[in-house]
Amino acid sequence: MKIVLTEDYEAMSETAASILFTNILSDNYQNIAITGGTTPQLMYEKLVQKMKNVSTINNTKYYNFDEIPYKNCRREGITISDLRTYFFDPAQIDDDNIHVLDPFNYKKQDQVISNNGGLDLIVIGIGKDGHYCGNLPHTTSFADETTKVIMSEELKIKVGEKHFDTEEEYPDFYVTMGPKSVLNAKEIILIANGQNKSKIIKRVIEGPVNELVPASILKLHPNITFILDKDSASELNNQTIEKYM
Amino acid sequence: MKIVLTEDYEAMSETAASILFTNILSDNYQNIAITGGTTPQLMYEKLVQKMKNVSTINNTKYYNFDEIPYKNCRREGITISDLRTYFFDPAQIDDDNIHVLDPFNYKKQDQVISNNGGLDLIVIGIGKDGHYCGNLPHTTSFADETTKVIMSEELKIKVGEKHFDTEEEYPDFYVTMGPKSVLNAKEIILIANGQNKSKIIKRVIEGPVNELVPASILKLHPNITFILDKDSASELNNQTIEKYM
Amino acid sequence: MKIVLTEDYEAMSETAASILFTNILSDNYQNIAITGGTTPQLMYEKLVQKMKNVSTINNTKYYNFDEIPYKNCRREGITISDLRTYFFDPAQIDDDNIHVLDPFNYKKQDQVISNNGGLDLIVIGIGKDGHYCGNLPHTTSFADETTKVIMSEELKIKVGEKHFDTEEEYPDFYVTMGPKSVLNAKEIILIANGQNKSKIIKRVIEGPVNELVPASILKLHPNITFILDKDSASELNNQTIEKYM
Amino acid sequence: MKIVLTEDYEAMSETAASILFTNILSDNYQNIAITGGTTPQLMYEKLVQKMKNVSTINNTKYYNFDEIPYKNCRREGITISDLRTYFFDPAQIDDDNIHVLDPFNYKKQDQVISNNGGLDLIVIGIGKDGHYCGNLPHTTSFADETTKVIMSEELKIKVGEKHFDTEEEYPDFYVTMGPKSVLNAKEIILIANGQNKSKIIKRVIEGPVNELVPASILKLHPNITFILDKDSASELNNQTIEKYM
Repeated sequence: MKIVLTEDYEAMSETAASILFTNILSDNYQNIAITGGTTPQLMYEKLVQKMKNVSTINNTKYYNFDEIPYKNCRREGITISDLRTYFFDPAQIDDDNIHVLDPFNYKKQDQVISNNGGLDLIVIGIGKDGHYCGNLPHTTSFADETTKVIMSEELKIKVGEKHFDTEEEYPDFYVTMGPKSVLNAKEIILIANGQNKSKIIKRVIEGPVNELVPASILKLHPNITFILDKDSASELNNQTIEKYM
Repeated sequence: MKIVLTEDYEAMSETAASILFTNILSDNYQNIAITGGTTPQLMYEKLVQKMKNVSTINNTKYYNFDEIPYKNCRREGITISDLRTYFFDPAQIDDDNIHVLDPFNYKKQDQVISNNGGLDLIVIGIGKDGHYCGNLPHTTSFADETTKVIMSEELKIKVGEKHFDTEEEYPDFYVTMGPKSVLNAKEIILIANGQNKSKIIKRVIEGPVNELVPASILKLHPNITFILDKDSASELNNQTIEKYM
Repeated sequence: MKIVLTEDYEAMSETAASILFTNILSDNYQNIAITGGTTPQLMYEKLVQKMKNVSTINNTKYYNFDEIPYKNCRREGITISDLRTYFFDPAQIDDDNIHVLDPFNYKKQDQVISNNGGLDLIVIGIGKDGHYCGNLPHTTSFADETTKVIMSEELKIKVGEKHFDTEEEYPDFYVTMGPKSVLNAKEIILIANGQNKSKIIKRVIEGPVNELVPASILKLHPNITFILDKDSASELNNQTIEKYM
Repeated sequence: MKIVLTEDYEAMSETAASILFTNILSDNYQNIAITGGTTPQLMYEKLVQKMKNVSTINNTKYYNFDEIPYKNCRREGITISDLRTYFFDPAQIDDDNIHVLDPFNYKKQDQVISNNGGLDLIVIGIGKDGHYCGNLPHTTSFADETTKVIMSEELKIKVGEKHFDTEEEYPDFYVTMGPKSVLNAKEIILIANGQNKSKIIKRVIEGPVNELVPASILKLHPNITFILDKDSASELNNQTIEKYM
């Protein structure tokens, strides 16, 4: 476990973009799962800039690790749409290299990844409630290991309202890779910025491993790096930072 | 996670010995933590045989991951004594390559390992109660992350009686690497044999991740192999074996 | 570069078999190229014994790295026939996992291996003339990089006579992975035994890198291990052995 | 082998800086050998900028791979002085992490690196004559494997004149890691820019492996990336670029 403490959102984004860029350029082909949401938007912008200036056959395979579908799946879900907008389209990623997780194929996600050689890297964000991917408090136990569906009751309260205008639009469920699917990656990068993440970052890094703080289990992975801006790290003890820096 | 199902104790021992031997021969120098107890005795016997027939400078560094000291530490503890008897002495391992964990240095164990580049491999056994290393039910939470001391109350009931003749000899404490220290290894091998391990193997592999079954958390590691003889695997569902085989 | 000096042919075979067995059991699926000929026969015997006592889904993909076809390709070539006899058949390797190199597909060998993630391990022998795979003195330069065909003039003198009864049976050509194809593997194991290999082992390990000793270039690989019995290592200086042991 | 074709010197520098930055941030401590000269100056500038915005304990160990000493060694040599000016000083690298190669310790360079776990990455440039590190045509054979001294006759013509004002200042020798020392790294990055490098890049990548083009042997390494700007790649066949891109 490593903490990389960055000056601000810009530096957090540049640091994560450099790591992603390096993985993408690797001579060994890579399987990378990446995150939607707002935190990574500048990271993708910087990554796209770096990629535009190099010509290389991009063998990297990309995966989304969760999906909030539209009601009745009438169009592609929230996560993959985000990834297309902020990364796949501007970086001109070949469709053959985009492995879309959706409500129809989620049961095969772990096997597909395993057959392709396993995830080399997963880049994730974290919610104020300690969720990562779609692993929320109360909807997740460490036993819900692999990619799964989460039904609507939890979703209405926790997720839908951020993404849809009216309650009628809320989907009945979403899909997500579970703890074991995520921890099975060879490397995990968790990015966080902003004062509003400081309390949960403290609980995750300094507190016990506990199902009510789903991301707390991630720190048991042998190769996880937390890339934090100063604000999100502001409640950590100096001792903690020094220990893992 | 992988399950290697072996014919019997002999095949389990041969398989684990081959893996250890390969690591020891690696051109990149290795840090390996290994287990005492009865399960690995034939594994060490076979490993020593293999090593006797090759000349190679053995740069591998060895670590014990727990220690039950004698009362008042009047001689070397149970684990390191086992390791000397069954492996270090017959394999003529140079003392410089043996990193002894004991009650006096346990606070530095994680840092020493980290400075040496991290554990490449840890080979562990499992108790009928689901303990691994010195991480026992009720004495351990997933939050007790790193190498630590466990005081005597728990020990008297759980551990001392196997090793000492009279209760007066029971030590006041023991030391052990905690969940995070173990999960930080690049690779974990868990060996088990015998009908009396079949119930706990089932709980660990098929049950939830739960602090009352300490070893249950190990299956979240991205590179763990369970080497089981048929008896210890006899309660697993066929579906489980097929999935992870 | 590492030299593992083994007691005799039996110990050389056991050591190489243990390494192959460990790779085959790996949780990450492996691409392994292996050698025919007489040197590895006991290695395969020991490997098959080890594999018979474990049940595991064998995802390993196997490749032959050269092939001497029968005249007019009227049956499978010498190398793959050897591999079937000594390893694939007794170990019951699934045909889907055997990637046969032959005169019809050799131009695709490097790309097929690359698409599958690259060779994790290649186990090769060495000839008294310093050849490895089908890379012979005078027929090979370091510039003949990838998998290629070698025409009959060289072959008649150098190879055919070992394998065929009458000169009419000699094939017009053979195919082999070239220096770059071999050096592209993540790990190389070279096995040798017997007094009759001692002179070439000395030239390869202690002499200059030179196209007339094709195997001399292998020592520039970052992860190569020479597993030698005492006879084949008998002409090496003690200094050399100590340096690389 | 991989070719990353970048738009211009700026993009080449940004790409190489991102890769170095990622290695430096790795949770596993890294041994990195880096190059002096003019090619990498913008790479170091960009790397220093990236490093200034993150706080992390920098365990990376740095090595110079060659050194042109001042006459009579009256001050630190050309290479290490360059590295201090362009990287170590502005990045505030701790002196304990700088392993200086010089005329007094060169015989121990390979052993020191090996004891520290081997080079994880070496970043090198290339001369118009095909030299890399101090491995020049006519002064180098593939047999000069490890770190060595090269005496002055060659040096006067080839190297001294770039660095010293008067011939009296030319040193009597220089030291350099040899082919095997360099090829022993787990990963090699070769950077080149400018039209004046286009002919040698073509010879290295498309021509035979030949001692008169010392860098030609590098392409046999299993994990080498050529990061080229368009000018330095301008003489390569499209076929070559497509094959290795």
